[in-house]
Amino acid sequence: MTEETTASRRSRITPERQAELHEAVLDLLREVGYDALTMDAVAARTKSSKATLYRQWGSKPELVARALRCTQPVALADIDTGTVRGDFAVMIQHSDDAQMAKDTALLRGLAHAVHESPELHKALRDLLVDPEITGLQAMLRRGVDRGEIAPDCKALDFVPHMLIGAFIALPLIEDRPVDREFLGQFCDAVVFPALGV
Amino acid sequence: MTEETTASRRSRITPERQAELHEAVLDLLREVGYDALTMDAVAARTKSSKATLYRQWGSKPELVARALRCTQPVALADIDTGTVRGDFAVMIQHSDDAQMAKDTALLRGLAHAVHESPELHKALRDLLVDPEITGLQAMLRRGVDRGEIAPDCKALDFVPHMLIGAFIALPLIEDRPVDREFLGQFCDAVVFPALGV
Repeated sequence: MTEETTASRRSRITPERQAELHEAVLDLLREVGYDALTMDAVAARTKSSKATLYRQWGSKPELVARALRCTQPVALADIDTGTVRGDFAVMIQHSDDAQMAKDTALLRGLAHAVHESPELHKALRDLLVDPEITGLQAMLRRGVDRGEIAPDCKALDFVPHMLIGAFIALPLIEDRPVDREFLGQFCDAVVFPALGV
Repeated sequence: MTEETTASRRSRITPERQAELHEAVLDLLREVGYDALTMDAVAARTKSSKATLYRQWGSKPELVARALRCTQPVALADIDTGTVRGDFAVMIQHSDDAQMAKDTALLRGLAHAVHESPELHKALRDLLVDPEITGLQAMLRRGVDRGEIAPDCKALDFVPHMLIGAFIALPLIEDRPVDREFLGQFCDAVVFPALGV
């Protein structure tokens, strides 16, 4: 049964149905990888029509980017505890070890696909990377405004590099995915001293 | 003409010839990627026999790892200026912007291949990653012995994560490969404050 039978042609599908579709896309991505993922396969797996998929998401890169965004437990822009350390603690606390392990494999496959597909690169940047970097910058700016971080602290420009770098480097160096314990230790040892908090 | 005609069967080939072979392997890697790279193609490109290649390098993963090792301008273990900042400055100064840009594309392809081939993973770890991490640790230990770094500094365990992370994260975040200027800024802003030097 397709959405068209239960909803008017231009209406949005329900959030539950959307979550179901996103989960199916991620499952397929893990199973076959980005290149082999087709809108036909997504339509078959989710028992929806391709017309619905294209109407809701526009394109395969956008569908993949939006599905990935749904795995994020919390938007950084929504965290505001009153201290930089508190904000990072909430960010880490909301991370899910099992989810991060699954995401590591997923992102590894996508990191490769990104260089073959400028459209995927743009969709991931617009929908996933840029909003998080903007959220992170707002979090850090509040730290500067409160006097926790010096306005001319050089590390302010490198926080995304530190965090994203740690995510990718740990599996390469120690052959294990990032978990909450590692993130906490890395922030204590590297991010906070660099920021001077 | 093969090495067999110019050297006795068990002798090592000349360093010049070895460098030539390594360069050809890297060219092929950039052209076709790890999966499609065959010992036949390396033999044809370098006008050597497969027997020579297998005798000198044992296997394709080892050949690739050794070829990559030759792109490194200086072994970290050989740097000892007397200060931590001095050692990092030499490390950065010896980096070659054009080479790093070429390596970024190469390593991106290999990061993917590593997860399909445990033999490649092991060869890269044994021949490339572990020796550099050992060299880095020796460099940091001298800093501790000289009193520049506190013995209980938490960042000591994360220097490889910071450096390797920055290398991989910059192209993802800013769409450009690492260069000497970025490495210098990153060390000033993140690595030195975290180490307290």
